Amino acid sequence: MNDAGATTAGEPLAIICGGGSFPLAVADAAARSGRRVVLFPLKGWADAAAIKRYPHHWMGLAQFGRFCRFARQEGCRDVVIIGGVIRPTPLQLRPDLGTLRLLPRIVRLFRGGDDHLLSGIGRIFEEHGFRLLGAHEAAPAILIREGTLGQHQPTPRDVADAERGLALIAAIGPFDVGQAVVVGGNRVLAVEAAEGTDEMLAHLAALRRAGRIRHPAKTGVLVKAPKPEQDRRVDLPSIGTGTVAGAAAAGLAGIAVAADNVITADIAELVRAADVAGLFVIGVGPAGERTG
Amino acid sequence: MNDAGATTAGEPLAIICGGGSFPLAVADAAARSGRRVVLFPLKGWADAAAIKRYPHHWMGLAQFGRFCRFARQEGCRDVVIIGGVIRPTPLQLRPDLGTLRLLPRIVRLFRGGDDHLLSGIGRIFEEHGFRLLGAHEAAPAILIREGTLGQHQPTPRDVADAERGLALIAAIGPFDVGQAVVVGGNRVLAVEAAEGTDEMLAHLAALRRAGRIRHPAKTGVLVKAPKPEQDRRVDLPSIGTGTVAGAAAAGLAGIAVAADNVITADIAELVRAADVAGLFVIGVGPAGERTG
Repeated sequence: MNDAGATTAGEPLAIICGGGSFPLAVADAAARSGRRVVLFPLKGWADAAAIKRYPHHWMGLAQFGRFCRFARQEGCRDVVIIGGVIRPTPLQLRPDLGTLRLLPRIVRLFRGGDDHLLSGIGRIFEEHGFRLLGAHEAAPAILIREGTLGQHQPTPRDVADAERGLALIAAIGPFDVGQAVVVGGNRVLAVEAAEGTDEMLAHLAALRRAGRIRHPAKTGVLVKAPKPEQDRRVDLPSIGTGTVAGAAAAGLAGIAVAADNVITADIAELVRAADVAGLFVIGVGPAGERTG
Repeated sequence: MNDAGATTAGEPLAIICGGGSFPLAVADAAARSGRRVVLFPLKGWADAAAIKRYPHHWMGLAQFGRFCRFARQEGCRDVVIIGGVIRPTPLQLRPDLGTLRLLPRIVRLFRGGDDHLLSGIGRIFEEHGFRLLGAHEAAPAILIREGTLGQHQPTPRDVADAERGLALIAAIGPFDVGQAVVVGGNRVLAVEAAEGTDEMLAHLAALRRAGRIRHPAKTGVLVKAPKPEQDRRVDLPSIGTGTVAGAAAAGLAGIAVAADNVITADIAELVRAADVAGLFVIGVGPAGERTG
């Protein structure tokens, strides 16, 4: 799907913006590379103050017709969807005509898990003449690479916990569960399902405070990786300073992510937060290429 | 390991009793079958009032030497370990001499997950001349059989959710994670890790109340099954009226368990609670034998 890259690079990039700092991080990175950027902030999620820095067209989550109209008018073919959208209910959506036509299909997509929903949305964009790019394709700087990021190093035991977590995420992939687990001392302490990583960490912290889960302080690794079949263009897992704070509050030793498969809006800020909190952050390469 | 069954059936049965109502349910069932019962209640966990109904010797969790002495004195060879023991820390244990000798080995067991710990304990009993029986072997009435237990029936969609949950538990088996998941509308809503089923359900209920997880009321199935490699003699998963209350509070439609692999202390009480709460309870047979 990237064979058109050379021909669309001169065209403006459409960024459909959910919440959080990722949309502007991607916009800034694309703009720095010399590309014109047009934002399509989602009402109710996007950060209005930050959006003003770029040409933009506000839209509802279910206003696909409106998006198509303005994106074509702006000459955009490449589209990035980025930022948090807490799973909406069908009732929250106020579909425009372009969306209404797709509604039976979207309702079917909602019946599956996140994967199903997100890759289905990707296909719909493609069928309407757009090319859906991963945020990391438009802004490679947001990808976390292999290696240790900050000043704290994982112990061999932490690395073993990280490997176990990555294997577990791979095993649960077919079930479209979450993208994060916590492993400490070879024991699986938490598995993310529908609650999200922050909530999983908050719950683990509460359980440890209450003495419901016991393991030594500063042990345990938060592991994040995409599900094996995940559409990387729509939904790469992400971490940020909030993740570091959550992992620290849960008493963990650090964070391990699948290298080149997890994004962060501002790596320098992430590293600063991890260094201050005393946590390691590592990108772990594919199993076949790992040393030791 | 059951070839000695005929020769030991006349000997008294030793029951090491943790918390909850299971120990007495097993004792009553064994006593009803005409067998003499000697209880070994664990200080801090067993129900002191109920224990009095049978000959008993209180012991600390780490008093293996004391157990061996009294069990041999009583002429017991068959041992059942049953009831809740919230994962203790090594500091909580006050080992006697018999335990101290095994301590390096037990510390190693503690480094693994529950499976590792529990099957290791099973081996230790065997090596000391005891025969470890599953509670369901001494008291088959506690096993939940295949079929619908109460007056409420699962819908075909509930059955599909149950099947998905059973497949997920099988897939995470090698990671020694929990024995329970919640699946609703084909979506995995929660995966038990170290927190236990009740806490998983309480957390899910809280997330739904807060609008953090949205799915229609009265959908979703709590699914429980042993891990594939689990030592069924020491740690069959269990449900009870508390599980029914937790599932109801989480807005679920019902409970599905792997038939003949999950125990309950009092089936009549379980069915009553489920009927009142409007939940179905089903035992699901092995995949190969399922109809539809």
